[in-house]
Amino acid sequence: MDSAALLDLLGNENRRRILRLLAHKPCYVTEISEYLDVSPKAVIDHLRKLEEAGIIESRTDSQRRKYFHISRNLRLEVNVSPYEFGTKSAYPRSRKLDVTTWRYLSLDVRASEEGDDSQSMAAELRELERLENELSMAQRWVQGRITDVLDRLTDELDATENSRLYADVLLELADGPAETESISKAVDAPPGMVQEVLAEMAEHDLVERVGDGWALDE
Amino acid sequence: MDSAALLDLLGNENRRRILRLLAHKPCYVTEISEYLDVSPKAVIDHLRKLEEAGIIESRTDSQRRKYFHISRNLRLEVNVSPYEFGTKSAYPRSRKLDVTTWRYLSLDVRASEEGDDSQSMAAELRELERLENELSMAQRWVQGRITDVLDRLTDELDATENSRLYADVLLELADGPAETESISKAVDAPPGMVQEVLAEMAEHDLVERVGDGWALDE
Repeated sequence: MDSAALLDLLGNENRRRILRLLAHKPCYVTEISEYLDVSPKAVIDHLRKLEEAGIIESRTDSQRRKYFHISRNLRLEVNVSPYEFGTKSAYPRSRKLDVTTWRYLSLDVRASEEGDDSQSMAAELRELERLENELSMAQRWVQGRITDVLDRLTDELDATENSRLYADVLLELADGPAETESISKAVDAPPGMVQEVLAEMAEHDLVERVGDGWALDE
Repeated sequence: MDSAALLDLLGNENRRRILRLLAHKPCYVTEISEYLDVSPKAVIDHLRKLEEAGIIESRTDSQRRKYFHISRNLRLEVNVSPYEFGTKSAYPRSRKLDVTTWRYLSLDVRASEEGDDSQSMAAELRELERLENELSMAQRWVQGRITDVLDRLTDELDATENSRLYADVLLELADGPAETESISKAVDAPPGMVQEVLAEMAEHDLVERVGDGWALDE
């Protein structure tokens, strides 16, 4: 799976909508078709392409319903400049083998020397290209660490879906206590849904009621 | 111009080939059509879409021939994970207004604390998201600096095209003197073309002959 194949896949609006949906929760075909108002036949075709590329996979539940979910971390970068059209994709074979499971990161960023002679232009370019690679690596690392925190949050909650929303609610409360209504606006989800999320997090001792609102559990 | 429109544009193999070609040198329609073996009609259609998006622009030379070139720095990042489908594009209105023209960069990267309570998960997520933004900014900065070095190299050479190849040759020689044949392999360009590039750089005192090979000019 190279960057070109990935760009071909992501160049389709409905495939992007499917991925956005699956990032919220695992879904089965009929669900996707109804949420997105796309025919089941077209959904199946998009899912097949995404599955063949290894971006999603499926799991069959006890009612024999086939749920699709995003299977791994993946990053694509495209650089366009008057001198370059470059694409780079990081596509680890498995989550365990990935650089992003490293625990620590250190990065050395310095502005390089400038000059118009060949020695200094070559040195500057080389330094910038080294930096570009290190920054890409660092971004994959950050992506992996975010997935890791959300995995832990999912474990804490025994949740199977939508941990991103739980995480967004947590982030809102990190600024201090807030009421459901204002959290709802901040995370762009209906108050009813936020209420459920808060109740479930309270059950798992992650948040607590404070007056009319909610706060992180001390 | 948002990330979705950009992905739609880049989701076409022939448009990617046109951008790759224009990153080497400005071209006119017939040239592009012949290089890529795509009909002039299709080329014109792709160019129009790229021009409307502001990625390329054209200049008419003294023979009234219309040359197309890539007009600006642009970066697209796509993040896919079990919890996210996110796209981000940096698309400065003009090269002068861009963050990437800043002269210095400093970046603070630290591994954040880990814990399974809500306080530490929220703190960790927030730190990682801050880091993600800073790294994106840093990569745009690096991209801008690379374009800047290549602009300077183009000025030094009075060249109008292909400075990327000149830069690659410079980078090869930064490791020490080398012969045309081995440079040709390293930069993936025919020996004849590399020979011309070296001769032109020698004329501008950027490289010099050393024995059977070439070296950066001291």
